Formats: sequence, C-alpha cells, structure tokens
Amino acid sequence: MPNPTAAMLVIGDEILSGRTRDSNMHFIANALTARGIGLSEVRVVSDDHDAIVAAVRALSAQYDHLFTSGGIGPTHDDITADAVGAAFGVAVTHRADAMALLGAHYERQGAEFNAARQRMARIPDGAVLIENPVSVAPGFTIGNCHVMAGVPKVFEAMVASVLPMLTGGAPLVTQSLRLMKGEGTIAEGFGALAAEYPDLSMGSYPFTQDGVYGTNLVIRGADGAQVSEAMARLEAMFAA
Amino acid sequence: MPNPTAAMLVIGDEILSGRTRDSNMHFIANALTARGIGLSEVRVVSDDHDAIVAAVRALSAQYDHLFTSGGIGPTHDDITADAVGAAFGVAVTHRADAMALLGAHYERQGAEFNAARQRMARIPDGAVLIENPVSVAPGFTIGNCHVMAGVPKVFEAMVASVLPMLTGGAPLVTQSLRLMKGEGTIAEGFGALAAEYPDLSMGSYPFTQDGVYGTNLVIRGADGAQVSEAMARLEAMFAA
Repeated sequence: MPNPTAAMLVIGDEILSGRTRDSNMHFIANALTARGIGLSEVRVVSDDHDAIVAAVRALSAQYDHLFTSGGIGPTHDDITADAVGAAFGVAVTHRADAMALLGAHYERQGAEFNAARQRMARIPDGAVLIENPVSVAPGFTIGNCHVMAGVPKVFEAMVASVLPMLTGGAPLVTQSLRLMKGEGTIAEGFGALAAEYPDLSMGSYPFTQDGVYGTNLVIRGADGAQVSEAMARLEAMFAA
Repeated sequence: MPNPTAAMLVIGDEILSGRTRDSNMHFIANALTARGIGLSEVRVVSDDHDAIVAAVRALSAQYDHLFTSGGIGPTHDDITADAVGAAFGVAVTHRADAMALLGAHYERQGAEFNAARQRMARIPDGAVLIENPVSVAPGFTIGNCHVMAGVPKVFEAMVASVLPMLTGGAPLVTQSLRLMKGEGTIAEGFGALAAEYPDLSMGSYPFTQDGVYGTNLVIRGADGAQVSEAMARLEAMFAA
C-alpha cells in the first residue's frame, strides 16, 4: 500500500510580506516524514477568503490530508474557520464545547470572555476539535482537513495532538553520502543508478566548503534493504 | 495603478521531506515588498514533471510575475527547464550563448565540460538568460516566469540580476505598534479601525514575553499619510 499523501496550507499576509519567517512548514515536513506520510505540496496564501477557499478545496481533493496553519485567533484578520466552512459547504457557529473550554479559561485568568474571544469558538459544523495544550483555543478537523494555529509553539502542540490519530505509512529510510566532488562530476553515474531504482528517490544537493564544490547525495525509500544496496553501489562508484 | 502581483514556486523534494529548510521564500518576500511588488502566493512542489508544469501554468496565468527556485543543476533530478518549457509549449535546447559561458568557465577550471554540465545550457526557446555571478550557470526568463537556482547564494544573486529589470510599484509603507495586551483585548477596536480603512492592510500578531501575552499590530499600505493617520488613531486607542 502506498504511503498516505499530504499537503500544507500556510495562511497569512505576514509570511508573504516577509515580516515573519515561516517555520511551521519545516516542522511538519519532518513530523510527516517520520510518520511515513509524504508531504507532496505546500501553498502559502494571504488572509483572503476566496484564496483560502480555493486552496482548501484543491488540496483537500488532491491529497489524503491537508494541514493548515494560521488565521484562527480573535481578530478581524482571522478568517480561516469561515473559509474552511465555506470550502466544505457547512455553517460555522459558536460551538458549545469550545465556548465552555474558552469561557472557563478566561474565568481562571480573570479576563472578560468578550465577543472577540468568543470568535475562537466558531467551528464549522461537523468538525472534531483539536486540543491546544498551550493556549486553550482549539483547532479542528473537518473531513481530511486539519486546521491549526499559526503561532509555532501552538502549531507544534496541535500537530502532536493530531498526528497519532492518523494512519501512517512505513517511515521512509534515508541515507546520504557527502562527497567533495562537484555535481557535474557525479551526475552521469548517479543518474544511471537512479534509473535502475525507480522505487527510490535520489537527490543531489551541492554545497561549497572553503571554496571547493561538494555534493550531498541522498537516497530515500520505504525499503531499507534496497536503500542500503543502492548506497553501497554509490559508495563503490565515488567514495573509493 | 495597483501594484504588480507575484507568485513564487519552490521546486524540490528536499524541502518537502524536511531535509532542507527553505530560505528563498523569505528572501524574495522582502525583496519584492521593498520593490512594491506584492507576493500573493507561494507553492512548494516536488521534483515531479507534471506537478511543476501544472503549478507554472496556474501561477503564471494568475499573477504578473512568477519566480521559481530549484532544479536547474546538472543532475537527473534537475528537471525544471524541461517542465517550464512544457508549460509554455516551447522546445528546450542546448543554447549557444549558455554553452559558450559554461564552456569557458569549465576550461578556466580545468574541468571537463561533460554531458551533465552541458545540461545546464538547456534553455526553453525564446527565453532571456539571467546572469549568475556566483557559479556561472544561468537562470532564465520566459514570458513572465523567472527561473532561478535553489542554492540560496545563487538564488539571491539572480534575484539581484532580475529585479531591477521589472516595473515595480509604490513601495508599501509599514508601521507597527507593540502592545503588552492580548489579542482578545484589542480585537474589537482594531477590527473597527480596519473596517474604516479598506485600502490598508491591518494585521495582528500575538507573542508571549515572560509568560505575558502581547500583540504586534501592523498597518501596511501604499499611502504613507493614510498609514500614519490610522496608526495615530491606533495609538490613541491602546497605547495611552
């Protein structure tokens, strides 16, 4: 059975303007790879209703899972819940369980549970809440779409709540070989080897060190024995 | 006249697997913002011909400019030139000027100008070369699509070659206000202000400091006087 596929949708003007450097994409890439779920595509869109709806529809249709980050706070630019509701064709309402969670939280803090904070209890009908152990306001899963916060500490905690619920695949095995040779020197032999192993993914990543070109060669696949066999041939070819 | 729009397409399995953390998206976001070109969308796709072709077609049709990074080196996994050629419906051939540039470079280095290195001279018909002052192998522009290397130092040099050629817009003016108040406290007033200034973009970004919640409020727009006016009202509202 092939490994499940996934996409990520990062929502937020602050990433596109360069104000904030996204770190959630890199975090989930590693978390999904470790769980044997292949991250196939990422999109970043602005805080724009139509752009979010279009991306959620396209990505949730094309991949087994869609993870989103950003836009679920209390301010006017937090429009993710409404856009995801629209993408799935369901209403978005103040949900009783989320209202209870948040109401108790602000009561403990001695802060007013005002209309803005109540917005964070607006959840598309039929969704399942995602626990937020950091700051209480929940994410949610609707269909195959997992909606999470943009603040990295909260995003990471929500990923930790969601991932164990999903069916993973065989974790991919990765081996790499670091060579102090330029890509142009190894390309022919490496390409020929890659053609012999269509089930493995082989990539070549150049670097420079003290002005000398080097290359990291990476072999990745679900079958560890096959990865090792291909790596042994690569070492015999270049590392001698 | 509205500012030009742009998208970026990051090409590479290594980003999606988590092996490499992308930095080119953040770099170009800042460079475009400074030049008054609005980055509206980013996509990351794997080294897959059909995925690259589909993304290039969609993004070059929807935005004024498309910038790509990755997949233009000498190895078998470098398939961007062919995919971009296919997206624009043109042939990809070894081009004489690129062959001459690369041939002279490898002759100076005393390295063989072999078939793998000659692949880097394969350019879609009708494209204009983008200079690479770091490692010679050129990028190219075809239509509104600017194809650049993935290695950050090379990508950044190519952006510096390309951006001055493009018609920019009025640089966006950004002002921000840092408050030691949570988002839930400022959301109502901030949202009402944003509704009064439809030409400005107003965003709210929470943080914690020593366990206390704070919020950065950001106002951005092309009209500096309007940004200052709105910021003065925001300060009167919250910073008193």
